[in-house]
Amino acid sequence: MRAEPTRRARPLPREDHQMSKIVALDTYDIRFPTSRELDGSDAMNPDPDYSAAYVVMRTDHPGLSGYGLVFTIGRGNEVQKAAIDALAPHVLGLALDEVVHDLGGFARRLIGDSQLRWLGPEKGVMHMAIGAVVNAAWDLAARLAGKPLWRFIAELTPEQLVATIDFRYLSDALTPEQALAMLRAAEPDKPQRIARLLAEGYPAYTTSPGWLGYSDDKLQRLAREAVAAGFRTIKLKVGLNVEDDVRRCRLAREAVGPDVEIAVDANQRWDVSAAIGWLQQLSETRLAWVEEPTSPDDILGHAAIRRAVAPVPISTGEHTHNRVMFKQLFQAGAVDLVQIDAARVGGVNENLAILLLAAKYGVRVFPHAGGVGLCELVQHLAMADFVAISGRKDDRAIEFVDHLHEHFVDPVRIRQGHYLAPSQPGFSAQMREASMRDHLFPEGRVWRQAAPDAATG
Amino acid sequence: MRAEPTRRARPLPREDHQMSKIVALDTYDIRFPTSRELDGSDAMNPDPDYSAAYVVMRTDHPGLSGYGLVFTIGRGNEVQKAAIDALAPHVLGLALDEVVHDLGGFARRLIGDSQLRWLGPEKGVMHMAIGAVVNAAWDLAARLAGKPLWRFIAELTPEQLVATIDFRYLSDALTPEQALAMLRAAEPDKPQRIARLLAEGYPAYTTSPGWLGYSDDKLQRLAREAVAAGFRTIKLKVGLNVEDDVRRCRLAREAVGPDVEIAVDANQRWDVSAAIGWLQQLSETRLAWVEEPTSPDDILGHAAIRRAVAPVPISTGEHTHNRVMFKQLFQAGAVDLVQIDAARVGGVNENLAILLLAAKYGVRVFPHAGGVGLCELVQHLAMADFVAISGRKDDRAIEFVDHLHEHFVDPVRIRQGHYLAPSQPGFSAQMREASMRDHLFPEGRVWRQAAPDAATG
Repeated sequence: MRAEPTRRARPLPREDHQMSKIVALDTYDIRFPTSRELDGSDAMNPDPDYSAAYVVMRTDHPGLSGYGLVFTIGRGNEVQKAAIDALAPHVLGLALDEVVHDLGGFARRLIGDSQLRWLGPEKGVMHMAIGAVVNAAWDLAARLAGKPLWRFIAELTPEQLVATIDFRYLSDALTPEQALAMLRAAEPDKPQRIARLLAEGYPAYTTSPGWLGYSDDKLQRLAREAVAAGFRTIKLKVGLNVEDDVRRCRLAREAVGPDVEIAVDANQRWDVSAAIGWLQQLSETRLAWVEEPTSPDDILGHAAIRRAVAPVPISTGEHTHNRVMFKQLFQAGAVDLVQIDAARVGGVNENLAILLLAAKYGVRVFPHAGGVGLCELVQHLAMADFVAISGRKDDRAIEFVDHLHEHFVDPVRIRQGHYLAPSQPGFSAQMREASMRDHLFPEGRVWRQAAPDAATG
Repeated sequence: MRAEPTRRARPLPREDHQMSKIVALDTYDIRFPTSRELDGSDAMNPDPDYSAAYVVMRTDHPGLSGYGLVFTIGRGNEVQKAAIDALAPHVLGLALDEVVHDLGGFARRLIGDSQLRWLGPEKGVMHMAIGAVVNAAWDLAARLAGKPLWRFIAELTPEQLVATIDFRYLSDALTPEQALAMLRAAEPDKPQRIARLLAEGYPAYTTSPGWLGYSDDKLQRLAREAVAAGFRTIKLKVGLNVEDDVRRCRLAREAVGPDVEIAVDANQRWDVSAAIGWLQQLSETRLAWVEEPTSPDDILGHAAIRRAVAPVPISTGEHTHNRVMFKQLFQAGAVDLVQIDAARVGGVNENLAILLLAAKYGVRVFPHAGGVGLCELVQHLAMADFVAISGRKDDRAIEFVDHLHEHFVDPVRIRQGHYLAPSQPGFSAQMREASMRDHLFPEGRVWRQAAPDAATG
């Protein structure tokens, strides 16, 4: 593993791309009309149209581009696209080498724009846009190295990995030196873990049975199918009506039997005291975790809920907007486990910081996925974490929802409740050309055919 | 005060506006080239171009519009404008009465958009856009009532004021019933406090002497001028170089004498341990407060800094993105005082929640201003707080920076270190037509005349 430079399988001889530049940052407003089917309905999101502000970082080397996306649920996707466009001046004209050999510097260039920073800092629309562009740069670097992103990250040296991370505001919890020591400790077993990953895959859990819009029968049928397909954990959406939730948890337990785990997700529905009362009523079902019981910003609220309902495991993270918030969730003992999201924080770099923090605090990570493209992206981060950071995978799992994978060039592959390790170079974010064209909003075929009132955005 | 409906001075007979509607939500990208002068430079913002994503909520009643803005510092102002545009479908066609008589419902309609909520929730670009539109609605309501906004708020009944607030995620710190009790307790003395406010104004402090781009001589000259003008507190920017900061604090103390307060503002420059070390070096100067020592998201970090440097007062708030974060700052004992900002959170409603929380926790409020239009806006909130909520003004002050007021129709008026209470109806956010036209980006006169490379955004 140490012989990084010679092992890197470059599809291009160095001299061919040495003079290459970033020549375009093209953005697309792509939306899927999922609200027509009620797939993806939960207590806070009754009618999402799964969408992506999609970015293609084009180089002047024929056929070489990097791909990234921000996942949204419909309206506002155009705002997200405008935010990515605002980053173009930082990217256009950069030498390819400046990007792929200094991914830390590239991210800091975007995050450090002193004027754009006012719009966050490091949160919401602008930070998610930065994440998409930074992820496109990692995709580009992994493609150039000829590796899937999980392996590209896993085969960085500890020094290279630490150099990609912005430790600002983290040093009271994690210093670069501590991160280096953790990564060095994980070094010797990396080859063996890569072999295990390739052989076994990475555990998945599924949310497919549990959407609020589904009938009891559909819930039970899908829960049984999930178990038959090899999943060891399922997740139900809760939070609209407590009697319904008690019944649905009971039906789910009936369907999956005693050995499969059931998690629930309230999607931020409750205040602190409401969460405590609701969870006490759900106590007959043993829960693997309770996700997003309240505002994702409420670190102290999560800590209070966790204390009140112990030992029920408490979790949040898919809307946690940056590493400073994750740091505090860990410092406050607010969570038993966390979700990470590949397209909410400022890109791979920040997710690596979060994975290091989680490992340091001994908190398990159950990556958030679903939506469109989130499974494709986040699998790489979980697998890199297993190989190079935490060294663990069998006490955790990546969310899986079987939606919209057909629109990607390198879709996830699930076998017996496990994600198989991607083998194609890059971050798996590239969409199929026909899918992009058809789902462009509002001019694509799918939206032109929709009822007129569905296309008003 | 109780006879609210009859006291409300309506410029229009009720029947005239009963059928009126919102017919347009016009938005403008307005930028001032302040970076050419280094006014407003601090440790994180070396070259701001003070800007506003400006919104005009037009009605079909001749001459009646509501005005609001998001303050930004240049690049990204177009993203902010796009975010306001995304809210138009929630506003267009609403009856004027639906807006001005249900300002709580109006704000919840915007914040509750389940698809746009994904882009936050309640933070960053999208939340700031909601704030601008909600503020424009309050401006409209106050204009219709013929009152400056501070008085419009102050003369709401406790029940009416509480009905404007979204208590979601607050109930572990403040319930509607507790808020009502606080407001009722403040009722009897409202007329007397209105009279005091009109006679005395509201204390101001000034940041004008303290920008990092200024020479020592200019700092001392401006500090002396501030004292001569009646200010009792000045604020210096710090955080680039500790020796410079020690010297500049010493020079400022020399200039203002022992009785005038000196505050410092690090604009999020430090990690926790760096803040503690730096502030220990500044300890020879008695500081009124230390503002934004670290990430605005780091509630536990502020608490740790405060404990380590006690009794130096610690403060944050201008970048605190919503009421849930303010709640935790108070719960964690992380701050001695807070800034509020009129154009960062979700509008007047959320700032009223924050003011109620601050009053409940006994935390003083020193509103953030400066930029463009922030003084004009936030004075109304501080004055309403004095009259109707906290009942205090002489142990706190509103920031004042003497920039860009000439662009507003109803600019702030400062006398002897005090803001005079505005008397014109509304929220004072309306810009002069010529100022708007000249500063439209990039097509306005000011930008067309600029050097070509200054207009690339």
